[in-house]
Amino acid sequence: MTDLLLKNIRPMGRETADILIRDGKIAEIGAGLDAPGVVVEDGQNALVIPGLVEAHTHLDKTTWGMPWYAGRKGGVLQDLIDNERNERVPLGLDVHRQSMRHAIALIGTGTTHIRTHVDIDTDHGLSLLEGVLKTREALAGMIDIQIVAFPQSGLMVRPGTLELLDAAMAAGADIVGGLDPSSMDRDPKGQLDAIFALAQKHDAPIDIHLHEPGELGAFTMELILERTQALGMQGRVGVSHAFHLAMVPPARIEALMERIAALDVSIYSTGHPSANVPSLKAMRAAGIRVGIGCDGIRDTWGPWGEPDMMHRARIVGMKNGFRRDEELELLLDTASGAGAASIGVAGHAVAVGSAADLTLLAGETLAHAVVLQEPRPLVIKGGAVVARAGHAVIEAP
Amino acid sequence: MTDLLLKNIRPMGRETADILIRDGKIAEIGAGLDAPGVVVEDGQNALVIPGLVEAHTHLDKTTWGMPWYAGRKGGVLQDLIDNERNERVPLGLDVHRQSMRHAIALIGTGTTHIRTHVDIDTDHGLSLLEGVLKTREALAGMIDIQIVAFPQSGLMVRPGTLELLDAAMAAGADIVGGLDPSSMDRDPKGQLDAIFALAQKHDAPIDIHLHEPGELGAFTMELILERTQALGMQGRVGVSHAFHLAMVPPARIEALMERIAALDVSIYSTGHPSANVPSLKAMRAAGIRVGIGCDGIRDTWGPWGEPDMMHRARIVGMKNGFRRDEELELLLDTASGAGAASIGVAGHAVAVGSAADLTLLAGETLAHAVVLQEPRPLVIKGGAVVARAGHAVIEAP
Ligand SMILES: [Zn+2]
Ligand SMILES: [Zn+2]
Repeated sequence: MTDLLLKNIRPMGRETADILIRDGKIAEIGAGLDAPGVVVEDGQNALVIPGLVEAHTHLDKTTWGMPWYAGRKGGVLQDLIDNERNERVPLGLDVHRQSMRHAIALIGTGTTHIRTHVDIDTDHGLSLLEGVLKTREALAGMIDIQIVAFPQSGLMVRPGTLELLDAAMAAGADIVGGLDPSSMDRDPKGQLDAIFALAQKHDAPIDIHLHEPGELGAFTMELILERTQALGMQGRVGVSHAFHLAMVPPARIEALMERIAALDVSIYSTGHPSANVPSLKAMRAAGIRVGIGCDGIRDTWGPWGEPDMMHRARIVGMKNGFRRDEELELLLDTASGAGAASIGVAGHAVAVGSAADLTLLAGETLAHAVVLQEPRPLVIKGGAVVARAGHAVIEAP
Repeated sequence: MTDLLLKNIRPMGRETADILIRDGKIAEIGAGLDAPGVVVEDGQNALVIPGLVEAHTHLDKTTWGMPWYAGRKGGVLQDLIDNERNERVPLGLDVHRQSMRHAIALIGTGTTHIRTHVDIDTDHGLSLLEGVLKTREALAGMIDIQIVAFPQSGLMVRPGTLELLDAAMAAGADIVGGLDPSSMDRDPKGQLDAIFALAQKHDAPIDIHLHEPGELGAFTMELILERTQALGMQGRVGVSHAFHLAMVPPARIEALMERIAALDVSIYSTGHPSANVPSLKAMRAAGIRVGIGCDGIRDTWGPWGEPDMMHRARIVGMKNGFRRDEELELLLDTASGAGAASIGVAGHAVAVGSAADLTLLAGETLAHAVVLQEPRPLVIKGGAVVARAGHAVIEAP
């Protein structure tokens, strides 16, 4: 692991100091540090925060760097899912190449940890997973990648998928995924019993896409919470989107959030601009572990998005109606330190003893840094410089 | 006025051609044009569209280029209004300097027309207007600026404001403004009768900020429509925000939109991320003239926003759930040609006889250009180059 002396940075916006990194960990933070023989980087008075955390994306889907894809469809969720599954091959969407482009762009914009969902379906088997596994291996040490085996096309409605999920977990996926057990899979008990059993078999966490609206989503959430409690999976279950937490009556939202916090279920939000999204402040105030993510970036579903967690933080902040500095600071924390906790990475902080996974930001204060559209001056992973001035130190394919 | 031969551009995404500009107007569009003695610009195969139109902003409010403002408040609309009115002087917000920065940034990002609201209140009198009038004069020929005399702090609730609006119109404002006649001013009949009378006196159009929710907003809109019809002001009234058009039941929305279209009232939307916003597609399908705008940019109200209509178009597009190329093209049209029509600028098009107000865009297609975060290669106003590679040809103060 790497030693590095990072001079002239402002840890979490506080007064200018130096950070000494030994063996990839933060060994010392203070003024005027000296370490003979250790490589020095001058932070030029930039802010420094724990590396950004992309808590919900799909590295296997992006067309980033490919010719413009003009075939996007309207319609309901099922139409978009079918379009993607049918278009992957004709489009020439090479998952290893594309996930490399996506992940390297995230390194360039200051992300040190990614949780990605990867489609597992009976058309593609484990081939998409293999592409992302290769990317994880190629980028080892530069960015940490958690992989969710994700039944994008449904589990109960597509026999054979559960066996593929099992194989995916054996092949290197870390987390068992799920998708709209009621609205999409038409059998909430069936899907949830199956994925919780699979998670127990592999001693793995769970992360479920739950777009279901209103009381339907709240019902499915209750089923998830019941199983989390019954199986003792506190702290190992996450739910992505959870739109229902912005759709049922306020008292019901409050009660659900209280129980989500008590069972230590994480919530991942993308600040979806055209959907109802749970209040970030309410979730954090309830004590829920929350992460944010970009979801798909310029994929067959939609043209939007940038592989940049600061860009996403702004979308989440605007969606939440944040204005004040303390709100912008809460947002930045959710995109970094707290976001890491939400995906099970503890101690992600600018603190002695923590891994030296650090992102430098331009700006006068942390709040200012949130709104500034400026490249990240420097990104450090395990003590090594992995990006400068907005660009990763390695080239994307 | 200026002559220019613009070579190698793709008008509205069609095949590569040249545009000959004579006396600030488009004289010819075709392949292999030649014009001895005329200055040539090579478009390098960029797309070209009519200049972007900022249909709703506040040039008198931004802190752009000033130190970070950490004093933003929570609270309701009235709190934000009071905070701004009280903070302008202590902050040192010089309106001429700030409106120059804002407008020049908009030139750099390809905007050729701005409609700005300017606060008129009994604390500041016409002083803010004077700053923006100076900016309009300083930038004459580089960007067109329409000024709305805007009673930001209320009209009926602050006696003396109506007289100031009258004076503002005499001093050079073009359009009579209004603000939440019911919820804010507590006297919808009073405010609307007053501003319609003032508009008639000055033979001027009207533009009303209407944030009022649900049936209250629909009621106020009905009062606006009644006066538009009774006074024969078809085609000269605009309503900004109109959140109620996303809040009342669908059949009522449909009926309101039909009447708005019949009375040729324009709607200006900002795609407000944390509010309900009327459907852009539904408004356009109803035949309503629609423009989009950034509203305030990094002002005392909120930290968000960029002086860039392509950035705003993406916010509006995401908010509207647009995915398909034809939706992105509708969005781009609303930000340019159709947006101009919404503020009373007819014939804003890449067409022979039109003013040579043109913005070049990077991208494979118009849809691609909407999502690409790239600087505008070239911006042309009245045949003169006013910006290159994302930067105006003049320096901001
Ligand atoms: Zn997702
Ligand atoms: Zn406004």
